[in-house]
Amino acid sequence: MDIKDKNIDELKTLCSDIRERILNVVSKNGGHLSSNIGAVEIIVAMHYVFDVKKDPFIYDVSHQSYAHKLLTDRWDEFSTLRQFGGISGYTKPNESEYDYFVAGHSSTSISLAVGAAKAIKLKGEDRLPVALIGDGAMSAGMAYEALNELGDKEYPCVVILNDNEMSISKPIGALSKYLSQLMAGQSYQRFKDKVNKFLSYMPDTAAYMAKRFEEGFKLITPGMLFEELGLEYIGPVDGHDIEGLIQTFKVAKEMKKPVIVHAQTLKGKGYEKAEGYDENWHGVGPFDIESGEFIKKVARKNATTIYAQNLLNLAAKHKNIVGVTAAMPNGTGLDKLIEVYPERFWDVAIAEQHAVTSMAAMAKEGFKPYITIYSTFLQRAYDQVIHDCAIMNLNVVFAMDRAGIVGEDGETHEGVFDISYLNAVPNISMCAPRSEESFAKILEYSYEHCGPLAVRYPRGNFILDDEFGCENVEFAKANLLVDNGSNTSFIGYGNGVGRAYEVMQILTDLKPNLIDLVFAKPLDREFLLNLASYSKIWYIFSDSAKKGGVGEILSSFLQDEKIFDVKVISFELPDIFIPHGKTPDVERNLGVDARSLSEKILNNKKS
Amino acid sequence: MDIKDKNIDELKTLCSDIRERILNVVSKNGGHLSSNIGAVEIIVAMHYVFDVKKDPFIYDVSHQSYAHKLLTDRWDEFSTLRQFGGISGYTKPNESEYDYFVAGHSSTSISLAVGAAKAIKLKGEDRLPVALIGDGAMSAGMAYEALNELGDKEYPCVVILNDNEMSISKPIGALSKYLSQLMAGQSYQRFKDKVNKFLSYMPDTAAYMAKRFEEGFKLITPGMLFEELGLEYIGPVDGHDIEGLIQTFKVAKEMKKPVIVHAQTLKGKGYEKAEGYDENWHGVGPFDIESGEFIKKVARKNATTIYAQNLLNLAAKHKNIVGVTAAMPNGTGLDKLIEVYPERFWDVAIAEQHAVTSMAAMAKEGFKPYITIYSTFLQRAYDQVIHDCAIMNLNVVFAMDRAGIVGEDGETHEGVFDISYLNAVPNISMCAPRSEESFAKILEYSYEHCGPLAVRYPRGNFILDDEFGCENVEFAKANLLVDNGSNTSFIGYGNGVGRAYEVMQILTDLKPNLIDLVFAKPLDREFLLNLASYSKIWYIFSDSAKKGGVGEILSSFLQDEKIFDVKVISFELPDIFIPHGKTPDVERNLGVDARSLSEKILNNKKS
Repeated sequence: MDIKDKNIDELKTLCSDIRERILNVVSKNGGHLSSNIGAVEIIVAMHYVFDVKKDPFIYDVSHQSYAHKLLTDRWDEFSTLRQFGGISGYTKPNESEYDYFVAGHSSTSISLAVGAAKAIKLKGEDRLPVALIGDGAMSAGMAYEALNELGDKEYPCVVILNDNEMSISKPIGALSKYLSQLMAGQSYQRFKDKVNKFLSYMPDTAAYMAKRFEEGFKLITPGMLFEELGLEYIGPVDGHDIEGLIQTFKVAKEMKKPVIVHAQTLKGKGYEKAEGYDENWHGVGPFDIESGEFIKKVARKNATTIYAQNLLNLAAKHKNIVGVTAAMPNGTGLDKLIEVYPERFWDVAIAEQHAVTSMAAMAKEGFKPYITIYSTFLQRAYDQVIHDCAIMNLNVVFAMDRAGIVGEDGETHEGVFDISYLNAVPNISMCAPRSEESFAKILEYSYEHCGPLAVRYPRGNFILDDEFGCENVEFAKANLLVDNGSNTSFIGYGNGVGRAYEVMQILTDLKPNLIDLVFAKPLDREFLLNLASYSKIWYIFSDSAKKGGVGEILSSFLQDEKIFDVKVISFELPDIFIPHGKTPDVERNLGVDARSLSEKILNNKKS
Repeated sequence: MDIKDKNIDELKTLCSDIRERILNVVSKNGGHLSSNIGAVEIIVAMHYVFDVKKDPFIYDVSHQSYAHKLLTDRWDEFSTLRQFGGISGYTKPNESEYDYFVAGHSSTSISLAVGAAKAIKLKGEDRLPVALIGDGAMSAGMAYEALNELGDKEYPCVVILNDNEMSISKPIGALSKYLSQLMAGQSYQRFKDKVNKFLSYMPDTAAYMAKRFEEGFKLITPGMLFEELGLEYIGPVDGHDIEGLIQTFKVAKEMKKPVIVHAQTLKGKGYEKAEGYDENWHGVGPFDIESGEFIKKVARKNATTIYAQNLLNLAAKHKNIVGVTAAMPNGTGLDKLIEVYPERFWDVAIAEQHAVTSMAAMAKEGFKPYITIYSTFLQRAYDQVIHDCAIMNLNVVFAMDRAGIVGEDGETHEGVFDISYLNAVPNISMCAPRSEESFAKILEYSYEHCGPLAVRYPRGNFILDDEFGCENVEFAKANLLVDNGSNTSFIGYGNGVGRAYEVMQILTDLKPNLIDLVFAKPLDREFLLNLASYSKIWYIFSDSAKKGGVGEILSSFLQDEKIFDVKVISFELPDIFIPHGKTPDVERNLGVDARSLSEKILNNKKS
């Protein structure tokens, strides 16, 4: 039965079926839970009022798109959510014609809606872009850039603002405050307070106050902030009231203008344990629905935890250490530091550009900022890294969590480009830890490092367990971990050292030298020249794109040094967008697991 | 005499002296004229009220910082503006302790002010960050990201909004409209119109209107948009009234909160020919003050003009061609296209992220977007290139003007990183024209190309004058322009081909092969394998960073192909930020002019 033929009661039943399906699958496979079950009514109402067969349905960051997937021919397949070869956790046109766009990074939806609206206008078609964006995503600059054009040009389009009063974690920023005041009807009260406070700046301000009142009292309705930008505003509406939503969307549809529909929802709605402010229920691993307990894997300490613990120690010792995260306090472990040092560590919301540049100013003032942003999201601040940090050679640390293959999040989130895009930037140094202990040493070193330093570390665990003890880190110094005086060397970077070590355990006859490069920029020239004098086959292990990666850096080094008898074979990642799935599955698929690499080396030796 | 001891009349005289000095020097050296002479009173008043010895003076994009330079010990040196080794056209801490930060890209100032304010608070110092930002720079997302934190955290700081009702070109966007309405006092009228229009959406909207009015009429003063974001707002004030400015800044200073001071100025103020809306007077070459005539150099057609003319022809033929610029209509030549096809080409203001992503949606809809952004500014949209264009392998063209050394603008603007940062991105192809005719052919080809294609071309002219005729462009095909069957090959990319040719003219005995690579990604494998079979010394010529550049790409290619007897010597740019100055001066300094390169080759042959 088509959704448009259902009555309200039937729609409510549908919502509860969808919610149950999401809960069941996510409790098994992991995924984004609370944002998805919070948006069920909105998405059902979207499908009821708009036409998914022609209207572009644009899901910002697509943390909220599971209901949409279930409504568009993926009910059964949904059980493969986030598994290798299965349904993606994000919208994906390759997966369904009803997925308009790839979206895994936030705040692109309004730009996409503007582009779609321009296209529709030029083609003279009767279609209407509908974007669903969370309040968290509204903090990013690109959402504002898009509103700035949308309000000016007045392309018909509906932007549904799903306001659950939080982004991934707690609400941050002035816009977020503004939205919650609209909810609470506090605007007027606040304004009156403001006038009173303002009047207290007498006598200097008296002239201004007079002038301002003279211009006349003006009328305002809620949502004026958007209306001042040329957008119609409807709201706030209850985002779980399916009937109200349908009615509202119908109004918005008929306006033929850009409209913001402001809907209030409860994150986690319908699964009591996840309702409300709880970052733990945003992106989850498997859990028991009944008890709400997460099914924990016995695992070594993950890199994020190691980072946070060591930074905490370091921050206790050095008062000029500060730090920032862009809406990932829990994901980056910075929540621990914000808790202990709320005056020195900040979550600035989804605002990577601002995060980097504001910390650049702190570095200029003598502080040592730890800019803690996933490798994939630092792409959002690439220009700020270059223009605001590197040119002035400022003492900042880019702590890039989730560098390498990220597993279930897949192609939009892979942290594989950072070596390539940072290597070209003058003044930047790059290093990577191989184990818990080496990470501690690198962080200790990072405090003393002059200039911008980029440290990459993986999602999850290090492969190595400190098998090689732990030397102190010195600037641009590599480490020879196993010296067999061999013609063959395994050169690892970051978790690549662990992968190389795994391969050594398989190829017990090979007895290569094992090197931890530690620094990808600058290279340890002296060490490498010596190595090149007796070791003529270098296998490169690094969890990074081959193009512009460690192998290319070393090939180019050898060319520069006029060394032509060393063969570099890079086991970095191929020039494709990497599919989602459990990391081991993905690695096997790409042939970069230890077993596959061992076979490649054997074949190589044969040929 | 200290500026703080001057009376109003003396300050007025100072303003007129500064203006004259700027006019004289810029008329000789070129530079940013109208923004600088429009901001003289504001900057004098800043220096009068705030304390440049302790307060961070932050000039957004520093298009407006000349008066500041003149007021801080650089009156005489100012005659060397933008010359090699002389005063930079932007603020630069290496040049003066009074230049707080490097700024050549726009919209960083509020983030810097937030960072400085955090630092000041932590250090417990009595200092106040003062940011001067133009209304044009307010369109960029990162300004909004910063306001979002500033308004939330309420750090004391003064943001002076220099509103000359234009950015570099005409005002664009909803915020800009909003500001000019504040000026004209049109807010109230517009609001009334809005209410009337809104009521006409009866009957469906009736319920909403009732609800909205029910919440009570609220009072608003101008600037409410900022106040809703938690910022105090003072203005509008006359930005040329030195007395009024001083009084206003004093108020702002005492508020101990984040304050926006909205000052209205006339761009080009004081030099009649440059006053008002005229992009031609934003960044200028030398001109005659009396007549206002630009001192033209006899020059071949520059790359920008070639681009615009060819794109215009192409757009006439193919109706699905669209395009975008981010506030550089004149600089990119897109103004010509916007004029002829206002429905298909857009200036979206300083909003590179939105520019890229909105065009991605148009590509999805079957259009062919030409995203025309300087190489250096595309850094601002790096993530959008990856996440919104490359993952879906969309048919978009990135036309990167100003790729290579940009001359007088210097380190902040050098377009030297694009090859390095794009090479790692799957699905992206990269090519570059060597001459006017080859540019025409590449553009013709670009329309047929599937997937994202990045085309880089230089500021100014091509070195080559079509000496080699013009073959049609084929995907991933290189061109052997001179075949001497030689052991030595000159491999050029883009304007690098011309440089290689110049070197050939000097080293007449060498008789190398001359190759135009045309595509840096993917490479012409077959061609290069054949070349490698007989030519064992490859000199690489390209106007790009050596790290991650064409030389590294070729070194890595040879390694992959297990070819170990070819020597790659890259003449790309060193791993430093490149200083400003006339391009030939800069090139000589870096040793990448034809003469220096010839000598290097001779020395290399000797050794």
